[in-house]
Amino acid sequence: MSASGGQGRSSEPARTEGTVLVVGTGLLGASAGLALRACGVDVALDDPSPTARALARDVGAGRLAGPDEEPSLVLVAAPPDVTAQVVADRLRAHPGAVVTDVASVKGAVLEDVAAALSREGAEAAAARYVGGHPMAGRERSGATSARADLFTDRPWVLVPPPVVGERVPGERTRGEESLQRVLGLVADCRGVPVLMGAAEHDEAVALVSHVPQVAASLVAARLLDAREEAVALAGQGLRDVTRIAASDPGLWVQILGANAAPVARALHALRTDLDGVLAALDALATDGAAVGARARVARAIDEGGAGVARVPGKHGTAPVPFEVVSVLVPDEPGSLAHLFADVGDIGVNVEDFLLEHAPGRLVGLAELSVLPAGRPRLEAELPRRGWRVAG
Amino acid sequence: MSASGGQGRSSEPARTEGTVLVVGTGLLGASAGLALRACGVDVALDDPSPTARALARDVGAGRLAGPDEEPSLVLVAAPPDVTAQVVADRLRAHPGAVVTDVASVKGAVLEDVAAALSREGAEAAAARYVGGHPMAGRERSGATSARADLFTDRPWVLVPPPVVGERVPGERTRGEESLQRVLGLVADCRGVPVLMGAAEHDEAVALVSHVPQVAASLVAARLLDAREEAVALAGQGLRDVTRIAASDPGLWVQILGANAAPVARALHALRTDLDGVLAALDALATDGAAVGARARVARAIDEGGAGVARVPGKHGTAPVPFEVVSVLVPDEPGSLAHLFADVGDIGVNVEDFLLEHAPGRLVGLAELSVLPAGRPRLEAELPRRGWRVAG
Repeated sequence: MSASGGQGRSSEPARTEGTVLVVGTGLLGASAGLALRACGVDVALDDPSPTARALARDVGAGRLAGPDEEPSLVLVAAPPDVTAQVVADRLRAHPGAVVTDVASVKGAVLEDVAAALSREGAEAAAARYVGGHPMAGRERSGATSARADLFTDRPWVLVPPPVVGERVPGERTRGEESLQRVLGLVADCRGVPVLMGAAEHDEAVALVSHVPQVAASLVAARLLDAREEAVALAGQGLRDVTRIAASDPGLWVQILGANAAPVARALHALRTDLDGVLAALDALATDGAAVGARARVARAIDEGGAGVARVPGKHGTAPVPFEVVSVLVPDEPGSLAHLFADVGDIGVNVEDFLLEHAPGRLVGLAELSVLPAGRPRLEAELPRRGWRVAG
Repeated sequence: MSASGGQGRSSEPARTEGTVLVVGTGLLGASAGLALRACGVDVALDDPSPTARALARDVGAGRLAGPDEEPSLVLVAAPPDVTAQVVADRLRAHPGAVVTDVASVKGAVLEDVAAALSREGAEAAAARYVGGHPMAGRERSGATSARADLFTDRPWVLVPPPVVGERVPGERTRGEESLQRVLGLVADCRGVPVLMGAAEHDEAVALVSHVPQVAASLVAARLLDAREEAVALAGQGLRDVTRIAASDPGLWVQILGANAAPVARALHALRTDLDGVLAALDALATDGAAVGARARVARAIDEGGAGVARVPGKHGTAPVPFEVVSVLVPDEPGSLAHLFADVGDIGVNVEDFLLEHAPGRLVGLAELSVLPAGRPRLEAELPRRGWRVAG
């Protein structure tokens, strides 16, 4: 329980100038507050719930907002279905401020903000709104779960302001300025900015977030009527596939409702694949030798394997293309040194290394991660030097 | 890299007497060998691949089988689609032995074993076969990934031998003896035996293993045509849902093909739910205010939440019914001691405790896991004693 939180960053000046007003002090809003405070930015907190804003203040996310704040930036971290209205209200209330949000759907919010501004004849204000969506979260909500590092190295999508045309002179420049200011906010929160159009964003999150959520829920729902003995056989696979099925239904109805068309498109495609697998399994259930049925099932599993290979690793980087060469290492002093000397002689660079300490094993297993070109060389050369390479 | 592996078990005598012949020395066969060796059982290893059996020997899973083994038990750990034939062959080759297997589908194997024995007029041998399926595995295959603790505390399904009727006098007793011998093997491998009928087992694994596999593959396959920018937004949710999509297609075609009917039944039910969600999303995409559509989506997410709540925790126990009370704790010496004293005074037992050390936080968050009845008491009493309870 230390109050440091700066993690060696206090020497870097914040890119954000002036006050950031955080509207909505749940997990995301309070986490942004913590991150901004850690680099010295003035953060004012507002939330319709007095308890929520007091909690956010108590965890160190900022000070309570006064009645006459003049923020340079407003971060709207409200629930998705009220985000557009709060954004429009804040654009009106703070004419000198740039407003951004964190809602996980962008097209619907953008449309609703534009409609609200249009009703008020305030279309020009659109140049001060930058849609945002930090790809970060936790299974727990609320300021008490907030973390200053929630956004660190995570993608933070920004939708640059639209250029409405010639009707508003100078607008394009203002839009660019707005974007720069929000880019500074993202940098201060240590996020990785990703510029996208709203439609492009919504298609992307349908695939990487909303469809997986629906699939997890559907698989988990199958367990409702299962016998206790059946559920007791569950292992890590089922736990992983269904973990996010425990998410908040209220929030997900908002998200799926606001992104209905892209999610429906992806789910229709998924159903076509499912129908292919089902036809094959129905055929196999009737005739275990049904021609072509196993090939259809194999294709579905193959395509899944190719798809998952595109998923970036835990730290946001693309999957590393290393290949693993496993070598049995006798339990003798100097064995590993000898192995590394031989690998060096062969001229292959070891990118990563893992030694398995499995109970009950008489020898160790050294796993050498190497670039693909290095693998055949090690597999050819190491046995000549007396090493046993595992298949 | 130590050669102990006994983990304090050497004092417990093995329940298995005589030699266990492991046929198929991949991950499961070699892991069983390691576990049995750790409690002193004689293990003979056989595999069609000389390399595979030598590797299993080298990792300590047993000795190479000689030409005239007389095992008391044969553990067939072959691929699912050859398991039945290997079981029948071994029943014939070792008339004094009980044979069991590890194939992840049981009905098809049982039928094929019975058919093979019937062709040979050797129905009586069925009393020496106990179908088995340890619910354990790793993402990596082969003896070099084997672990003596792979089965520890994991369910190990056993299908007791069928009673073929009056035709074979004394068979029932032999069947019971066979089961006892395999129960001993499971105990020596530290597994948790679960007795089930073959059909019941196949329905269960369809729900907890095979349907999740298909769903993971279908979701992952949607990423094949996604833009690079979209895939780059992936987070832990997608990674979890799609992790098992990287599994071996060859193995999964065997498994799904052999369990086609139960998997198809569960997938048809899943498709009915999917169609409901799709109809709702299609309606919302056309008309954001479509009546009843949000309720349909909410039901799917709700049912998923109720289903996932039935999934046992990591250690095979049912999800613990504790509830969490979060208390803000100032960063002062003695705060936690004071909190625990107050909780004790209130008379609530703390089942589990977690203190969050989040960077950038000015106060800590103590999370007290208590039985459900304790939560309202703490929420009422702690604030009266000056503690701030998080919502």
